[in-house]
This record gives sequence, structure tokens and C-alpha cells, in this order.
Amino acid sequence: MLGKLTGFDDTIVAVATAPGLGAIAVIRLSGPDTYRICNHLFPAKDLLQQASHTLHFGSIVSEGHVIDEVVVSLYKGPRSYTGEDVIEISCHGSPYIQQQIIDATIKAGARLAKPGEFTQRAFLNGKLDLTQAESVADLIASNSAASHQTAMQQMRGGFSKELHALREQLITFSALIELELDFSQEDVEFADRTGLYTLVTNATGVVKHLIDSFRMGNVIKNGVNTAIVGKPNAGKSTLLNTLLNENRAIVSDIAGTTRDTIEEVLNIDGILFRLIDTAGIRESLDTIESIGVQKTMEKIREAGVVVYLFDVNELSETDIRNQIATFKAQEVNYLLVGNKTDVTGEAAIRNKFAAIPEILFISAKNHAHIQDLKDALVHKVMAGDVNTEDTIITNARHHAALQEVLKSLMDVKQGMDNGLPGDLLALDIRLCLHYLGEITGEVTNEDRLDYIFSKFCIGK
Amino acid sequence: MLGKLTGFDDTIVAVATAPGLGAIAVIRLSGPDTYRICNHLFPAKDLLQQASHTLHFGSIVSEGHVIDEVVVSLYKGPRSYTGEDVIEISCHGSPYIQQQIIDATIKAGARLAKPGEFTQRAFLNGKLDLTQAESVADLIASNSAASHQTAMQQMRGGFSKELHALREQLITFSALIELELDFSQEDVEFADRTGLYTLVTNATGVVKHLIDSFRMGNVIKNGVNTAIVGKPNAGKSTLLNTLLNENRAIVSDIAGTTRDTIEEVLNIDGILFRLIDTAGIRESLDTIESIGVQKTMEKIREAGVVVYLFDVNELSETDIRNQIATFKAQEVNYLLVGNKTDVTGEAAIRNKFAAIPEILFISAKNHAHIQDLKDALVHKVMAGDVNTEDTIITNARHHAALQEVLKSLMDVKQGMDNGLPGDLLALDIRLCLHYLGEITGEVTNEDRLDYIFSKFCIGK
Repeated sequence: MLGKLTGFDDTIVAVATAPGLGAIAVIRLSGPDTYRICNHLFPAKDLLQQASHTLHFGSIVSEGHVIDEVVVSLYKGPRSYTGEDVIEISCHGSPYIQQQIIDATIKAGARLAKPGEFTQRAFLNGKLDLTQAESVADLIASNSAASHQTAMQQMRGGFSKELHALREQLITFSALIELELDFSQEDVEFADRTGLYTLVTNATGVVKHLIDSFRMGNVIKNGVNTAIVGKPNAGKSTLLNTLLNENRAIVSDIAGTTRDTIEEVLNIDGILFRLIDTAGIRESLDTIESIGVQKTMEKIREAGVVVYLFDVNELSETDIRNQIATFKAQEVNYLLVGNKTDVTGEAAIRNKFAAIPEILFISAKNHAHIQDLKDALVHKVMAGDVNTEDTIITNARHHAALQEVLKSLMDVKQGMDNGLPGDLLALDIRLCLHYLGEITGEVTNEDRLDYIFSKFCIGK
Repeated sequence: MLGKLTGFDDTIVAVATAPGLGAIAVIRLSGPDTYRICNHLFPAKDLLQQASHTLHFGSIVSEGHVIDEVVVSLYKGPRSYTGEDVIEISCHGSPYIQQQIIDATIKAGARLAKPGEFTQRAFLNGKLDLTQAESVADLIASNSAASHQTAMQQMRGGFSKELHALREQLITFSALIELELDFSQEDVEFADRTGLYTLVTNATGVVKHLIDSFRMGNVIKNGVNTAIVGKPNAGKSTLLNTLLNENRAIVSDIAGTTRDTIEEVLNIDGILFRLIDTAGIRESLDTIESIGVQKTMEKIREAGVVVYLFDVNELSETDIRNQIATFKAQEVNYLLVGNKTDVTGEAAIRNKFAAIPEILFISAKNHAHIQDLKDALVHKVMAGDVNTEDTIITNARHHAALQEVLKSLMDVKQGMDNGLPGDLLALDIRLCLHYLGEITGEVTNEDRLDYIFSKFCIGK
């Protein structure tokens, strides 16, 4: 099925750097005509006569006009990102110039690349497997230490290796079972049933663990929707500002971070906490303490974590118990935070609420125990689920395929429990292999691939 | 004065590509420690052992963590943009990764570059003269064929060559006059007075021409403020849409062009026509036909061109004559455009307004004569002033210095007319040379340079 896709006969081009104005921009070409097209536009040298992995300065000239002075980077296939002949043109970073050069390459025979098409070619030419290719997009979109680390591990093949090992073992067993079928008259068992059972049990554990990691992966990739709620004057704005101000210094250093993002995202230990529509929720909560309005509660339940902030001097133990009961009834993942310990002193307050040990005490005004609150937020999200050093699933497609793998593994297991004959077991094992192969791209189809790569940015 | 600036002992780093998310980003280092710093972060190879102008794939590792898989481009001084050792790191285009790599290079001894600092070093190391360096910023900001062509010509040294020729001649004369001073007792004239007079006259012409080109240069660089005004129902919206729609297809292809820009800028033959606050002006004009309100007229006068659109079926020749009188009184640069020729037929209308031949007739609805209108707009702006193939001044600093050059040339001329002795003439010629040298950077000072380069983007 892949055969007819590889060996492309057209040459694609796209701007590979971020859109807009920069000191330089990079235009990337890949395909069999790359060198012919660039030679046509770059009169300084015959690029075909130059070695791979070298840099050359010269002008881009189209129809007698000098468009720009550039540096071209030469990669000869298969020693390139896509595995094809690739040239990258570093030009001055004016969008106008970028467009002129793209136009000139198109006139000379290139065509504009579709989103992700360079990486798709890299995959189809065997430079990356599918999970690695997908992680390239994740890596580019990574905006925190945790999402970066996860994408990096996947791009370097961590996830693939784990699946590959699983697949290899299943293939061996599958082959042995199918061998049995050839000798079915003789009633021999080449495949060790106990061994297979152990393997399937272990595999089930690994796959379950990977599936479970998706919740965490989602948190790492997309952040956690977080709401800070509480009565008026509980100190929500002060807390918000304290958290955001400490954070702003870190976030604002990153180029391209918009002001919106700065104001509404907390990066704690590499996990992004997205403060969802807090104003709206807060207002609703402020006015309707009984939490009767379904709409508000729906919004709150959408939040991965709800920080319930209260004034320790105002509320009683009973108030908090009622609040806990409400949250539990609505299945809210909450964190109780008592504020304004500075007024009567922390010791007295701890005493007052001694019966509810889960309360975290802070003084937003004095910045007291803010670090404890941050730790508690991270702990609430991580909840001891998964170690971030482990392989973590971040991709919904992988998650879906792994659930199919799990299902067929369970079928194999059940089949063995019920003494199912080898040929039927083999069917289930093959199904299991099919779904594993779909994840890494060993089994795939064109439409699926086009869909996966269409979500990439252009130029990658 | 330059001596103490060249031979920098620090290494600078910056992201050279546009901010934000892209498939790849490029981080540029320049300075004596470039190779040491990159070797520290790039364990795959000893980069010092590699040839200049080569590409190398590997990981960027900082404090035991793999930050990214990258390609490094090596340039060994003086064969680089700055003339120093330069390495460019092509990484995945996540702002997070870019920041991590910048941080790692800073930890390893680099410092963040100031805006334009790479180009400043290129200038101070003699890779570019000052007008060429300045044109790099213009080139990056160029957004039309004309601004691109002008910046490109300057970067390739067109303007510098013209000034250089002028300067060389003046230096020769200056030397001869100063030689006379050494023999002043003997009353000899080494410097041919007639030749000097011709030279100064020619130079005055060249400098005047360059100064005049600044108005055009400004148009090319910044576009022309344009207003489309007229009574209600003259067809202004239809015309606007006709112009913008034809244009949009071209403009929207350019990456990074914002929707705002698309809606409010017309690119005709490479000249940008910026439609200024037309809604406001139109409304005011609509309600106050007598044009009594000063504020509205001020806005109209701010426009480089005012397109006065009227319904040829509604207005009479006298109406238009009155309108012309108003525009002339207010010194408005106007273009008269009669719309809706489709209603009674073009011939009849041309007859009706035969006494005012400057009127341009169109039918915005039928797209008739829209190209004529575009040509007229361009002609109105160019007004036969300057050929775009000529050297055109686009930089206010150059404009100011050229005015000083002109002033001192006039002084030389006047001095010769008045039979001024050689030593006084020499003073004026030296002043003239000084201002010429300021333009190309042969004469300059640190503060001035810092100011010039501070207007660049970071990474250039």
C-alpha cells in the first residue's frame, strides 16, 4: 500500500520558519527536481557539483531580477530530513521576499507543500515511524518542560521501541501458532501455551499502563483547566495575582507568548494550569452560594481542578463540610485553600479547622505557603498516576488504537482460558498486531495518513 | 574611533527567524567563543575540526537533558555575515525549545544580542558599509516590489557607489588645494579652479536629485495615504470592494499578512496605497458638503491622494468645478472620478463633462476602467518625479546628511564665486566630505551607530 506513495516524482516547497517578519527566513524544497530548480534560480554555482551538507552564498535571480542574497544549505538524499534531495534557502526575513522566492520556485517547477508533507515524506521514506513523525508536531507545539520532554522522548523513538518489543514477541507466537495449523492433523503444540499466556498477561499490563498514561499525557500536552472559586473577599484576586506575578517573569521571556497566554496560564513544574473563565464562574458562585444553577456547576466540573478559596476568619468548619459535600455530590476535583491566616495567626486557624486536615492554609497577601499550594496543585493533577519519566501517551489516535489492542489481547486471553483452538487464537493475535502496527505506521492507509499529516503546520 | 569597537571579545546569540511557531527556527551565534560554546552543547562532533560552510546533524544537550535534535551551520570568520566565527542552529520551531537553546548558550558563555548587533558587527568588521547595513533592515521590512527593489539596490551598494564616486573626486581636489597651501608663498594653483567648479556644480545636481528622490523613497517605503471620498451613493463602497477584491487574491497569499492589512492596503504596481480612516472622512464629507469643518479637511490633507468619487448622473459640471476649487484652496492632491457611466452610457457622460478633461470615468459596478483608475493613482503619486530604476533615498538619516552635503557644496560654490582663498575652500570641502562619510559610515561615532542599529530587529 505504501509502495505507490514512495518515490515521489514532484518537488515540494514551503516556508519552514514562523510566518511574519524576522531577520532571516528559511524556504525548504524536497523532491527529485530540487537541485534543477535551485540551479535555475541560483546562478552563482552549479549546486549539483557541490557536496552534500555544505553551505553556499549567492543571489536568487528570477526573470532577470535579483530577489535576494541568500545562503543555500544542500542535503543530498537519502541524507536529509525527508530522505529525498533537500535544499534550504536562508533569505532575508521579509514576507514579501519569502513570497517572491516561493513564487520563483513554483515557476521553476516546484509545488506548494501541504501541511506536514515534508514529515509525511520522511515517514514514507522510512526516516521516521508514524509515532515519531507525529511527535514532531507535538515537539513544535510543546510549550512546557513536561510536554517538551514527552514529545522529545517519542520523537527519539521511546514509545515506538516499547511497542516494537511487544509486537516482536506477538509475531513470534503468532508464527508458531500458525505453524501448528499446518500440522493440525498431528495435534502438536509448537507454541508454548504457558509462555503465551504470560506474554499476553504482561502485554495487557503494559498496554493498560499506556492507556492510563493518556490522562496524564493530555494534561502534559494540553494543560489542566483550573478554576479558582470562592465567596467575595475570600482573596481570589490577590491569590491570582500572586500566582501570576511570580509566574509572569518566567513565561514572558519566551518569544511568541501572547499577553493573553501570560495572564491566563500558570506553568508549575512544567505543567500548564489554564485558568478557565474564572471571572464568570467566580461571579456566579459569589451570588449563588447554594450552587443551585446547573450551568455554573457544569463549568466547574469541566475544570480539571477547582481551587476553593475561603476566608478562614469568616467561614466555620460546618461551612467547609457543606462545601465538601456539594463538591463531592457534583464529582468536582477540588482543593480546599484557607486564606488570610495572617489575621489571627496560623496556629489558631489550624486549630479551628483541625477536623478537616485536607485544608491547605495560606496567606495570599503575605505570600505565605504559596509554594505548598503549587505543590498541591501539581500533586492533585499527577495524583501519583504516572511517573513523567515513563512513556506517556499524548495522542488521541494512539489512545484509541491501544484500546483496540487491549480488547484483542483480552480476547486472546479469554480464548486461552476457554481452550480455543490455535487458528482462532491466531486471528485475535493478528488483530492485535494490526492495531499495534497502525500506531507505528507499519499498517496504515493513505486517507489515514493524509488526515494525520494535515494537522501539521506547513513547512514541516 | 572604530578601532576600539572592532575585535569584539564577547559572543552574541539571538533567534534570527520570526517569533512564534514554525516548523523550524534558527538561532545565530557570532563571536570568538562561538565554537567553544556550541561544542559544549553539541556532543556529536568536535565542530572545530569541521570545515567552514558545512552542515552537521546532532543533539543539543544541556545539563544532561536533550533539548532538541538540530542541524548546525558552520561559518568560520572572516567568511561569515559578521566577519566573525558564526554558527546557526536550526532547531524545531517551538518557542519553548528556542528559549531553552538560547538559555543553554547563555549559560555556556554567550550573551543575548541587541537589536541589529549582528549587522553592526558586519559593518564594524568592514563586511558592509553603513548604507548597505541600513538597507538590510529596509529589505527585511520591504512589503512591495518597489520597496524591495530600492532596498535591494542599496544593499548591493548602488547608493554607496554613487556617493563613493563623488567623495573620491572631492578628496582629490581637497588634496590638491591643501597642497597649494603648503606652497602658498609661491602663489601656485595645483587645483584646477574651473575643474573644481564643474565638479561642484555636477555634485550639487546629483545631491539635489538624491534629496528630491526622498519624497518618492518615502512613498516606496511607507506607502501613500489614500482617501476615497464623495457624496452618499456615489458608489464608494462598491469601488472600494472592487479594488480590494481584485487585490485580495494577491495579498492574501503572503504569509503573515494580517486581515487588517489586507482590508486596508492596495498594492498597485508595487506601490502601497494605504486607505486612511476613510469611513470617518466619508461620513464627515457626506454630512458637511460645504467642507467647513477644519478637522475633516486636515484629515483629507494628510492623505497623499484623495480620490473624489461622484455619480455622473447626479452632479453637474458646476458641482465639480466648485469641488475642484475647494480642493485647490485646501491644497489637496485630488483625483476626480466619475462613477456610474453605465446608467446613461459613457459617450453621453463624456460629452456632459467635456469641459473638465481631467475627470476619469468608471463604472465600479461593471468593473469598467478600473485599470485606468489604478494607472492614474500610480501616476498621481509618481508624477514623473523619479524613475524607480534610479537610486532613491528612503532613509531620513541619509536625507538629513545629504542636505548638509548640499549646504556645504553651495558654500564651496559661493566661495569660489567670491574668490575665496584655497584654505577656506578646503574647509568647506572637508565639511562636505565629512557629511558624505557619515552616510556611508566612513565617518561616524559610537552613539550614532548604536542608535542606527537599535532600530533593527533582534537576530539581525
